[in-house]
Amino acid sequence: MAKPLYVAQPLLPALSDFHTLLGEIWHSKALTNEGPFHQRLEAEIGKYLDVPTSLLFNNGTIALLAALKLYDLQPGSEVITTPLTFAATAHSISWNGLVPVFVDVLPENLTLDPKSVEKAITNKTSAIMAVHVYGSVCELEALQEIATRNNLRLLYDAAHAFGVTVKGRSIASFGDASIFSFHATKLFNTFEGGLVATPKETDKASLRCLRNFGIKNEEEVVSIGINGKMNELQAAIGLLNLPLIEEEKRLRSNLRKKYNEVLGHLPGITIQQPQDGVSSSEQYYPLIIDEGAFGRSRDEIYGALKEHSIFSRKYFHPICTDFSPYKNWKVTSTRPSPYVNTVKSRVLCLPFHSGVLDEHFEKISKVFVG
Amino acid sequence: MAKPLYVAQPLLPALSDFHTLLGEIWHSKALTNEGPFHQRLEAEIGKYLDVPTSLLFNNGTIALLAALKLYDLQPGSEVITTPLTFAATAHSISWNGLVPVFVDVLPENLTLDPKSVEKAITNKTSAIMAVHVYGSVCELEALQEIATRNNLRLLYDAAHAFGVTVKGRSIASFGDASIFSFHATKLFNTFEGGLVATPKETDKASLRCLRNFGIKNEEEVVSIGINGKMNELQAAIGLLNLPLIEEEKRLRSNLRKKYNEVLGHLPGITIQQPQDGVSSSEQYYPLIIDEGAFGRSRDEIYGALKEHSIFSRKYFHPICTDFSPYKNWKVTSTRPSPYVNTVKSRVLCLPFHSGVLDEHFEKISKVFVG
Repeated sequence: MAKPLYVAQPLLPALSDFHTLLGEIWHSKALTNEGPFHQRLEAEIGKYLDVPTSLLFNNGTIALLAALKLYDLQPGSEVITTPLTFAATAHSISWNGLVPVFVDVLPENLTLDPKSVEKAITNKTSAIMAVHVYGSVCELEALQEIATRNNLRLLYDAAHAFGVTVKGRSIASFGDASIFSFHATKLFNTFEGGLVATPKETDKASLRCLRNFGIKNEEEVVSIGINGKMNELQAAIGLLNLPLIEEEKRLRSNLRKKYNEVLGHLPGITIQQPQDGVSSSEQYYPLIIDEGAFGRSRDEIYGALKEHSIFSRKYFHPICTDFSPYKNWKVTSTRPSPYVNTVKSRVLCLPFHSGVLDEHFEKISKVFVG
Repeated sequence: MAKPLYVAQPLLPALSDFHTLLGEIWHSKALTNEGPFHQRLEAEIGKYLDVPTSLLFNNGTIALLAALKLYDLQPGSEVITTPLTFAATAHSISWNGLVPVFVDVLPENLTLDPKSVEKAITNKTSAIMAVHVYGSVCELEALQEIATRNNLRLLYDAAHAFGVTVKGRSIASFGDASIFSFHATKLFNTFEGGLVATPKETDKASLRCLRNFGIKNEEEVVSIGINGKMNELQAAIGLLNLPLIEEEKRLRSNLRKKYNEVLGHLPGITIQQPQDGVSSSEQYYPLIIDEGAFGRSRDEIYGALKEHSIFSRKYFHPICTDFSPYKNWKVTSTRPSPYVNTVKSRVLCLPFHSGVLDEHFEKISKVFVG
């Protein structure tokens, strides 16, 4: 049996570099609660994302929970979102006592369809949670226009879009807030981790309080907060991984080109198209496989790769409206039948990281071109 | 200036032992999602706590959030709890869309007063969240009797009571669930960390799902879960710290005896009394200072210690009903005036860990006995 190849492989710093930072932790005995590494990493990422408010969290989901609490959204009010996303998006809405309302995605980039969003707005709608899925940037202008006109908060689940720029402008500067994930499967990882970024300096104090039990100081607790603190081990990993991501992105960019060359011209296979002025997050390599035109289904390809110990992922299958808690919930669409229900059985993410070697690439190519 | 002495000092394993485990992580590239160290630690703690369900979390607060979701508590229903606790207890209730209802504590051990609990029950009450504050064990039988008779869930915030036994029986086996914290300030720490323990094997599957987005398997999402996963760095620390706690407890037990000798006979100073058949968690050394009888107030002692760079803590001041979100909320009591409002300005936790040296001890003693 060949060594298995997974869809993601975590970036890790040199162990010796981590040892050096650990020595400082053992010396200072500062293990968490905005320790020195935490402060440094938060400052560095704030600069990297080029936004005034940029706060670390213990994971992306807790970051989503906290971001949704920044605004006094009416309990039970509706948050419009996409079903083509990881469970965290919809679940964080539900966990906070809000109701996710699912709408269709655009065939061209799989992000929220603004026209479907518009159609789903009711007098109970309080916010939109859009997702830059696979690093494809949402329809920023159209969504902002809808949000502003309807007095809705606009949040972006940017778990796949760390470091993306749009015509030179940081993705984190759009909407009311953007939430990132630094989970092991992400290009930039802190084992587990997350971040909330907002374009408003004034969000910082309230978000910091939400992250730390609403504690303002030793004498005052001013809001209902939770524990969203990233510890010093995670922060140290982050400090060491941050300088490594450019090289990893370069390697993934090369792999993307190689995949594109082999797969881009196959009938029935649609590859992700670059968006005008948008830099790639190099987070995923998604494909859409149309069985009718290609001759084989997504699930057949998934199975054929698996026989070579190559584990692609059917991200995001099941979609949210397949989950028991949202089973058969409506997906609002401007189409007779939501596109998301078609694409969910067609999308496949291939292994996409610097650990994909020539021998893997050959095997993967063969599965597609025979 | 002397080196500051804090109320807590984290237990850390030998850095070289941690290095060894890190080598395994770097080799396996398993960073989180119930990795090998996570599995080992979970099994070891389950054995240590002697309960069938014992699941690790990324911190104690997320563990509280998840435990409260185990039961289908009616949204907006009331959870009876104590105001004399860390913010996490009340905030986790509120965050989950439930309403904390505060009741008084017993003068003898500062835990929830069962008679006051009884008085606070309405037809909206769904649960009791009691706290083994400072490791003092709650009135287990009385609370269970009230919970059973009124069909309420009984949860214990056991953040201060890791490893406590009651007549040989694990504290984690009482009530419906017990929630532990492994924060840096706790005797057993994983930098940040937490755990939910329950006496029911059948809770395990649903709690695991809640911890990991409700994901049952690659094809099924069965509940509204969040990300409560402890990563492999935290789990490795846990594996190394667990065998160290007995020695730290022994050292703290000696310190407790020394403190007791000096402070136990002072008029106006009340020290924590051992409870019948209860083993000490050795987590805190709380004092109650009655200014009238002692001649100086808690705040004066706090200030005098601070002048020697000794940082005691006014745990738990402010109490929950001093926080802005619960400001002036009622504290139900069988007394004319709740005892908690008296004790909150009297309680002080002294530095309590193996880093308290003879020289510190002398200084602290002098502040009290002059």
